Amino acid sequence: MSLLVVGTLAYDSIETVHDRRENALGGSAVYFAISSAHFTPVSLIGVVGKDFGEEHLADLRQRGVETGGVEVADGETFRWGGRYEADWNTRTTLYTHLNVLETFDPKVPAEQREAEFVFLANASPTVQAKALEQVSSPRFVVADTMNLWIDVAREDLLALLRKVDGLVLNDEEARMLSGESNLIRAAHKVRELGPRYVILKKGEHGAFLLGDDVHFALPAYPVTEVVDPTGAGDSFAGGFMGYLASARNLEARTLKRAMLYGTVTASYCVQGFSTEDCGARTREDVESRFNELMDFVSP
Amino acid sequence: MSLLVVGTLAYDSIETVHDRRENALGGSAVYFAISSAHFTPVSLIGVVGKDFGEEHLADLRQRGVETGGVEVADGETFRWGGRYEADWNTRTTLYTHLNVLETFDPKVPAEQREAEFVFLANASPTVQAKALEQVSSPRFVVADTMNLWIDVAREDLLALLRKVDGLVLNDEEARMLSGESNLIRAAHKVRELGPRYVILKKGEHGAFLLGDDVHFALPAYPVTEVVDPTGAGDSFAGGFMGYLASARNLEARTLKRAMLYGTVTASYCVQGFSTEDCGARTREDVESRFNELMDFVSP
Repeated sequence: MSLLVVGTLAYDSIETVHDRRENALGGSAVYFAISSAHFTPVSLIGVVGKDFGEEHLADLRQRGVETGGVEVADGETFRWGGRYEADWNTRTTLYTHLNVLETFDPKVPAEQREAEFVFLANASPTVQAKALEQVSSPRFVVADTMNLWIDVAREDLLALLRKVDGLVLNDEEARMLSGESNLIRAAHKVRELGPRYVILKKGEHGAFLLGDDVHFALPAYPVTEVVDPTGAGDSFAGGFMGYLASARNLEARTLKRAMLYGTVTASYCVQGFSTEDCGARTREDVESRFNELMDFVSP
Repeated sequence: MSLLVVGTLAYDSIETVHDRRENALGGSAVYFAISSAHFTPVSLIGVVGKDFGEEHLADLRQRGVETGGVEVADGETFRWGGRYEADWNTRTTLYTHLNVLETFDPKVPAEQREAEFVFLANASPTVQAKALEQVSSPRFVVADTMNLWIDVAREDLLALLRKVDGLVLNDEEARMLSGESNLIRAAHKVRELGPRYVILKKGEHGAFLLGDDVHFALPAYPVTEVVDPTGAGDSFAGGFMGYLASARNLEARTLKRAMLYGTVTASYCVQGFSTEDCGARTREDVESRFNELMDFVSP
């Protein structure tokens, strides 16, 4: 297996101004796996409770996701509830029940320790580091994080950053981590902390990639209707890493195409609740929207 | 003369969290003219008071701006005062002294009525229409507007929209004019009102161009430090229209390049107060940043 993701499997309850879902499939690793599996086999490391539907794991396996690294622990699956306001930018967390996640100790099965491409979805930097140290010689490691860890676990996060190749973060997180209000300066400062590549997610406004040999800005795909933004960032990361793992090189042109694929998989994600839209997409859908996006952004 | 702009010449007083300027040269037509003059001669139609410094008009003429259409009226020049908050998105108008603008009746000199490219900077739709009807057979007319006119002069604005080829507006204005919250749907609705092309300005997040044969999204040029955003939209329009007028065609490729040039001239505008930065730029500066931007956005 060349691509590995460490992250969450969850049941989310989501309210928007238009509709709601209770206990829908969610979790960073689920969104990532569904998006990346269009391009390459992917191994998933995570934990669920006894209540987690076996059908979800079966569905993932059918997509080419190796689920041997998903531990089934005593207790309930991680649950998150949130509400989005009409502008989509304001998200209120209604509850976070960590449940089995509270004692999550990631274990990478022996046969997956040779992974070349690794995505460490948002988790405490300690958990991320524990997972990473089990991978023998990864070629390209990208981590996600959030304001909470920048705030309460900065030292652990800084230690992790010295071991990863790329960091995905949104503008607020970039400013918080770097202390710089200008986004480009912030991204350069983050690169000085370790990661050679910084991906700035700007939601509906697209994403930036900054690296030694590449400097790329991309708008979001203009979806006609956003239904539920949950999982957009992880779906982006899935398309990005999945394409890179399949291309097996890190040339500027490949990285830019990977940004486009990530934008495409994120756009399908936000078109439906939970995995309702992205889970129904084929590789053909992905290629079709990729071509459309390429046309939309090519000068 | 193939490019004509109808707009304001002003003295602006601007406060930012870092610095301030009193009675600095401003106005939509000034920013537009400085930006477009890199590419093509441009004629300026506007009004100033007796207090307006002749040196400003001399400076514009030296750039290739025809100022014969600038009326010098009894009274004082239009004055605007505003303050920007730290995020640059919150702008408070401190005062608006219309002065000579109050009775502005645009007169296009005979020798400029053959203009092929026309930009109607933000003004009441009645004033915009009065100027436009003096141009004999324009080939490509773009108008700007603002929330005020959408609110208080909607019918006049709708009448104007049936006579223009393009409309420049920001996301709030697009939503207000169309009643659609989704920006892409909003732009399509605006096109149904008349203009074949809609340019959505998203400030630091770039711009969209939507037309029959072109559909293009472009991020903003990532300036290292924003000093004063006043005039950014008009500077964008100047680069856009100036390049189009010089290219003399409206092919998709040309329109996309024009969007890049507009992004470049806007980026110089916001790097300094008033015209301090953009006014000091050469065509070489513009080409250099154009190449950099092209590299930044090319997939």
